[in-house]
Amino acid sequence: MSQDKNKIPTLSTCLSPSLLHLYDVSDSLVVIIDILRATSTIATALYNGARSVIPVDSVAECIKLGRQMDVLTAGERDGKIAEGLTYGNTPLQYTREFIEGKTLVLTTTNGTRLLHMALAEGAKGILTGAFSNLSALCEYLVAEHKNVILACAAWKDKINIEDTLLAGAVIHRIKSHFSLNCDSTMIAESLYLEAGDRLFDFMKEKNASHYHRLMGFGLEEDIRFCLTPDNANIPVIYKDGRLVAVR
Amino acid sequence: MSQDKNKIPTLSTCLSPSLLHLYDVSDSLVVIIDILRATSTIATALYNGARSVIPVDSVAECIKLGRQMDVLTAGERDGKIAEGLTYGNTPLQYTREFIEGKTLVLTTTNGTRLLHMALAEGAKGILTGAFSNLSALCEYLVAEHKNVILACAAWKDKINIEDTLLAGAVIHRIKSHFSLNCDSTMIAESLYLEAGDRLFDFMKEKNASHYHRLMGFGLEEDIRFCLTPDNANIPVIYKDGRLVAVR
Repeated sequence: MSQDKNKIPTLSTCLSPSLLHLYDVSDSLVVIIDILRATSTIATALYNGARSVIPVDSVAECIKLGRQMDVLTAGERDGKIAEGLTYGNTPLQYTREFIEGKTLVLTTTNGTRLLHMALAEGAKGILTGAFSNLSALCEYLVAEHKNVILACAAWKDKINIEDTLLAGAVIHRIKSHFSLNCDSTMIAESLYLEAGDRLFDFMKEKNASHYHRLMGFGLEEDIRFCLTPDNANIPVIYKDGRLVAVR
Repeated sequence: MSQDKNKIPTLSTCLSPSLLHLYDVSDSLVVIIDILRATSTIATALYNGARSVIPVDSVAECIKLGRQMDVLTAGERDGKIAEGLTYGNTPLQYTREFIEGKTLVLTTTNGTRLLHMALAEGAKGILTGAFSNLSALCEYLVAEHKNVILACAAWKDKINIEDTLLAGAVIHRIKSHFSLNCDSTMIAESLYLEAGDRLFDFMKEKNASHYHRLMGFGLEEDIRFCLTPDNANIPVIYKDGRLVAVR
């Protein structure tokens, strides 16, 4: 399964699900990036001992699967817990006391859809990435020695600053192990280097659309958490329909 | 036709033709950006007195229209004049001595396709933009007081650095006249501000894919020309199937 050890794998960046068809998904590991807040929440729940997180597209499917499996259901629409679900999409909620040993069915819009697209395209492997698990993700990707596509979930297909920043952070850390041949990769790294460790202030200064939206819901604490590196530092992979921590 | 004079128009940026469907094209002026080299060549030919440039999708159509109208034909494939056409896609060729008073049928791939997409979506108006006509374009857009979409032609739908840089340059100059609500706009401006007036070196340092490709064809002089602001400084609009200078 692994590529020729002497061949340098490629690292590409896809800034919107609408561009995924341009990339060689079937020959790559695909990292799903949806840091506000899906992939941050997923990393946090798994870091704190959740058995698995099952990502589903719709609230209806979330309710159905939650009943069938008798597990926790979570998801938000417009910043509030969606009707029929029990928990929200704030990473702060998923403490060890609450989530350890449990399975969570989570509905998110942009991230889950992109994950299913990558699956349909036959990705060699799927991971989720966030600032929360940045270092662990990077170590995993370097060790795998396979082609990587950093796939930003964006917002309804529109490119967003926050997912681009996380892509840039990954690129900056691991680029020496890969061949880079994609302008989006360079653009993402540039943006990240401009932001540096001032991620929250950068989002504010740039009036990032999703920053603006979540602040309007009173979720500043969530944003700050999702921009903090390594606060839930485990690699997350998709396996047999579930997201699980690699331990 | 003009918008309410008291309402601030919006300025959005679309970094790939694959994302154009996300934007409100029918309520906007759309600026087609394909600086290496289509929109630079178009600005240059018109600045130097061409009557009009007719953009067409294919070499076959270019040959056919050239014969029907008895006008010049131009276009390249893989860095060489395409078989059956007479001239290439280098802006340096379109001097006043050569092009004044003439009509040119030009086939380009990425830029022409995007222009036809914007037309099909019912754009309020279509312009072409390049560093070559940066100031004139900016003045025109501010004076029009309408919503603007900066639409990058990219390279086979993959986002590229050079078109993003030109979008960023326009944004940086005119943003105070518009409402900005699009993360891609902020990303493009950031990239441009990082490059500053070192555009050629920036392209080189970032190993921009199209820089690499054109250098391989021995076209450094073309790249340098296309990165020079205001060397063919007239606004270019699409009208009745032709690109013409606004004088």
